[in-house]
Amino acid sequence: MRHSMQNRPLLISSLITHAERVAGDSEIVSRLVERGSEFATHRYTYADAHRRSRQLANALTRFDIRHGDRIATLAWNGFRHFELYFGVSGMGAVIHTVNPRLFPEQITYIVNHAEDQLLFFDLTFAPLVAKLAPLLKSVRGFVAMTDRAHCPEIPGLTVWCYEDLLSAETDDFDWPLLDEQSPSSLCYTSGTTGNPKGVLYAHRTTLLHTYAAMSADAFCLTSRDAVLPVVPMFHVNAWGLPYICAATGAKLVLPGHALDGASLYRLFEEEGVTLSAGVPTVWMGLLGHMRTHGLKFSSLRETVIGGSACPPAMIDAFEDEHGVTVLHAWGMTELSPLGSMCRLKLKHLALPKPARRAIQAKQGKAIFGMEMKIVDGDGRALPHDDVAFGDLMVRGPWVVEQYFREEHSALVEGWFPTGDVARIDADGYLTITDRSKDVIKSGGEWISSIDIENLAMAHPAVAEAAVIAVPHPKWDERPLLVIVRRAGADLTREDMLAHLSGKIAKWWMPDDVVFATELPHTATGKVLKTKLREIYRDHVLPSTAAR
Amino acid sequence: MRHSMQNRPLLISSLITHAERVAGDSEIVSRLVERGSEFATHRYTYADAHRRSRQLANALTRFDIRHGDRIATLAWNGFRHFELYFGVSGMGAVIHTVNPRLFPEQITYIVNHAEDQLLFFDLTFAPLVAKLAPLLKSVRGFVAMTDRAHCPEIPGLTVWCYEDLLSAETDDFDWPLLDEQSPSSLCYTSGTTGNPKGVLYAHRTTLLHTYAAMSADAFCLTSRDAVLPVVPMFHVNAWGLPYICAATGAKLVLPGHALDGASLYRLFEEEGVTLSAGVPTVWMGLLGHMRTHGLKFSSLRETVIGGSACPPAMIDAFEDEHGVTVLHAWGMTELSPLGSMCRLKLKHLALPKPARRAIQAKQGKAIFGMEMKIVDGDGRALPHDDVAFGDLMVRGPWVVEQYFREEHSALVEGWFPTGDVARIDADGYLTITDRSKDVIKSGGEWISSIDIENLAMAHPAVAEAAVIAVPHPKWDERPLLVIVRRAGADLTREDMLAHLSGKIAKWWMPDDVVFATELPHTATGKVLKTKLREIYRDHVLPSTAAR
Repeated sequence: MRHSMQNRPLLISSLITHAERVAGDSEIVSRLVERGSEFATHRYTYADAHRRSRQLANALTRFDIRHGDRIATLAWNGFRHFELYFGVSGMGAVIHTVNPRLFPEQITYIVNHAEDQLLFFDLTFAPLVAKLAPLLKSVRGFVAMTDRAHCPEIPGLTVWCYEDLLSAETDDFDWPLLDEQSPSSLCYTSGTTGNPKGVLYAHRTTLLHTYAAMSADAFCLTSRDAVLPVVPMFHVNAWGLPYICAATGAKLVLPGHALDGASLYRLFEEEGVTLSAGVPTVWMGLLGHMRTHGLKFSSLRETVIGGSACPPAMIDAFEDEHGVTVLHAWGMTELSPLGSMCRLKLKHLALPKPARRAIQAKQGKAIFGMEMKIVDGDGRALPHDDVAFGDLMVRGPWVVEQYFREEHSALVEGWFPTGDVARIDADGYLTITDRSKDVIKSGGEWISSIDIENLAMAHPAVAEAAVIAVPHPKWDERPLLVIVRRAGADLTREDMLAHLSGKIAKWWMPDDVVFATELPHTATGKVLKTKLREIYRDHVLPSTAAR
Repeated sequence: MRHSMQNRPLLISSLITHAERVAGDSEIVSRLVERGSEFATHRYTYADAHRRSRQLANALTRFDIRHGDRIATLAWNGFRHFELYFGVSGMGAVIHTVNPRLFPEQITYIVNHAEDQLLFFDLTFAPLVAKLAPLLKSVRGFVAMTDRAHCPEIPGLTVWCYEDLLSAETDDFDWPLLDEQSPSSLCYTSGTTGNPKGVLYAHRTTLLHTYAAMSADAFCLTSRDAVLPVVPMFHVNAWGLPYICAATGAKLVLPGHALDGASLYRLFEEEGVTLSAGVPTVWMGLLGHMRTHGLKFSSLRETVIGGSACPPAMIDAFEDEHGVTVLHAWGMTELSPLGSMCRLKLKHLALPKPARRAIQAKQGKAIFGMEMKIVDGDGRALPHDDVAFGDLMVRGPWVVEQYFREEHSALVEGWFPTGDVARIDADGYLTITDRSKDVIKSGGEWISSIDIENLAMAHPAVAEAAVIAVPHPKWDERPLLVIVRRAGADLTREDMLAHLSGKIAKWWMPDDVVFATELPHTATGKVLKTKLREIYRDHVLPSTAAR
């Protein structure tokens, strides 16, 4: 029996078409990469962006780009990157946003693996392109995302100028009525081991993620917001914000290459930003700048923090010093990326502040459409009681099933193993306690490294902390706490152990505390624990009786 | 090229499953129909509702209900109706919510047309069921939505008791992984001419509507809300609110049969309702009661008004007297039903109050996923300039294509003709100016009856007003204004003409004003203009020179 309704496909082109219709004059403001350290912005509207996306689609057609062809970008958050999001996917090709912070060998690997046909790049990355171009076998054209005046010359390479390509085209282009299952965009995970793996999103999966992530218990974006995504557009589509902003007609503020505290603060204030999103590291820089100069936010209402766990102290700083609500989020490339967001419930509103903050320190509830469970080592589901923790498994219409060009499904009995270890409470709030590979297995029981790190980070003398497993003859593994002290701070092993004492189970207490001048990080700013484990593999633990 | 993501279907069962996971203890409060005028409520949680929906699915299986079978309801907004929403659709059958306010012949027609297998009814409708049962050929079982103690006896009819059916079943039921294109629910339009037509929704169309309607620029529902849908669950799924509340875990307050001002006000206050939704008529009753007794809302934040145009005076009353924001909405059965909602944009916030109110009087912007255009008599698209008005055409994944069991598509070149006449402004805000069949065609130009009615209604002596076309020898049609005076009010033809003068184009001025003691209404409370046209068909217009 056929239902009565229209069977219209979910397409990315509908986002920018909608934006023009209901928010044609809403602004997209971009800090100009071409102007370097000079604070110069470009501003135009969704109607302009839509027009230029159609010109871009015509330019791509002239390059003989076909449905499914991959187009790479090496670019910051800016209006031309925004046009590529819609022009490339809208015409049926696939935008492959390459993370320029990866090692050059990784970039070469993924561009070749994706068989990218064209590469669009911001000026910042011209030297990188000059170096890698000979190795990128499938790339037929290199396009500098700038105007003629700024277009770089790269010896031995034909470099097209983005603005020249566009100005040669009309905006007469009808977005094709694609199958919603058509691939639209491609991101590679920046795994700490092995080659990066590609996640190929589709129009349908992107639109469903957009709907779920824009909802009022997630980003809650409206046409009254001005949004500054600090999270890069090369990092899982800036958590979906370019799509969500188009769907809502929110003003979009794109910070380009200038992610330092002073640049960001000026953009927040001049453009009346109401919502932002990024990883803890960036906020550290911004909050530090503001503290040093005695500055306050005048328009910012909420900020979404994800990528890695947000230290409780950062939540306090945003809320108590600036009146800005922190929304803790969790996701990953394999989840498009949003899995959960932490907004309070009706019953939480009356709680005293410390209790509310304790909830905000969790990664929040699954957004509607995402299903989560935690399982033990044998795959048995564990209770949602905020005590049991196990491997976090997810499923849903915007969750990966099989990595791009991999032969096997990534799923275990229909669920994607996230590689995270988590607790879930009775209200559905998720707490990530560890990465599966970082969890410390002591005498058959698990110790969560993140819980201990959060406690250590709460000490005023600590700049950064990491807990890793070191081999132990009796217990298999025991926790070692590695600390970077704040500049000028004084802190001893004994101070830290005293600080932790009583706050965690006795058998969770680190067997030793060591101090380092810095911690190794991944390209996306996470502590590289594999490296730390290598460094401290032979660290001799004091002869304490574990447990 | 296959994308990487899971291809999970969009299913209604996922709503109630999600609700239990993230809002298992959120309340659903229902005014009990069984207790009549006594103010008695039933309260339980989403977890309870999910458990009982699974018991219901088992009970339906015992009745040999198969995928696609239609199950009718004649019921108010209450927890058992809520369970039917999820139990019936979740197990693969189709819930057919019958509007009990239709004429008995229409009810008989649609139940037979839908070939409903079972009929679930609230006690209020036992007499109606007793009368119609012999005529309902396909119905194999009648179920009273109550417990054993209140179960009615209907001579000659086996009446099952809902609570007995449930208590005979376990909650051991796994929601089937249906095709998302499977039909899920059925509503008939209450057309003023011809037989009602069915719109058969699918799981996919319902879920996409849910996502779009719950977004922050539409209902903006969160887990911190308490929602009281005054709009009945037999009227286009209560505008989707039962689904949206499940998707967000909002507290749900269901008013049953008691829609009078006193009952509603008590429920709003006792349950801390933050958002409500309904047609203007209901609000008239509630506001009247509150004015008489000097009452104020203590928790209500927003109310969504749709179904027919909200008089500007009602927007003022809600906002100025009660501090409640009115969200004007537009939709129809054929649109699942939401098409547009009126929320302000960033640039509107700084406008003076009268300018903001003028925007709020519009029906708002298309929600994301809905496309709208207006066309002239020849199907040519008209500009979105807030001046041109024409037939409103829509398309989108939750818009009807072909009515249930009709042979022909309802579309014109891929667009659904709504039967409404509208303007759209440059920001995408819709203003419904008329029903196509009510527009007055004077000398080849169109006159909007609604614009004149709104002006007439703004006069303090007017209780209700309608403008209809009467035949005219020279101009084909000319407007006649029919007025119901407020009790005790004094108002003459000349007073009204003076009131309108200068506020509308001269050639829009009604050729005559007549007074009536009441206006005829449809089952859903709209003025029955076809009837009015009949009554005044031979009305002799004064010999004014039109234009």
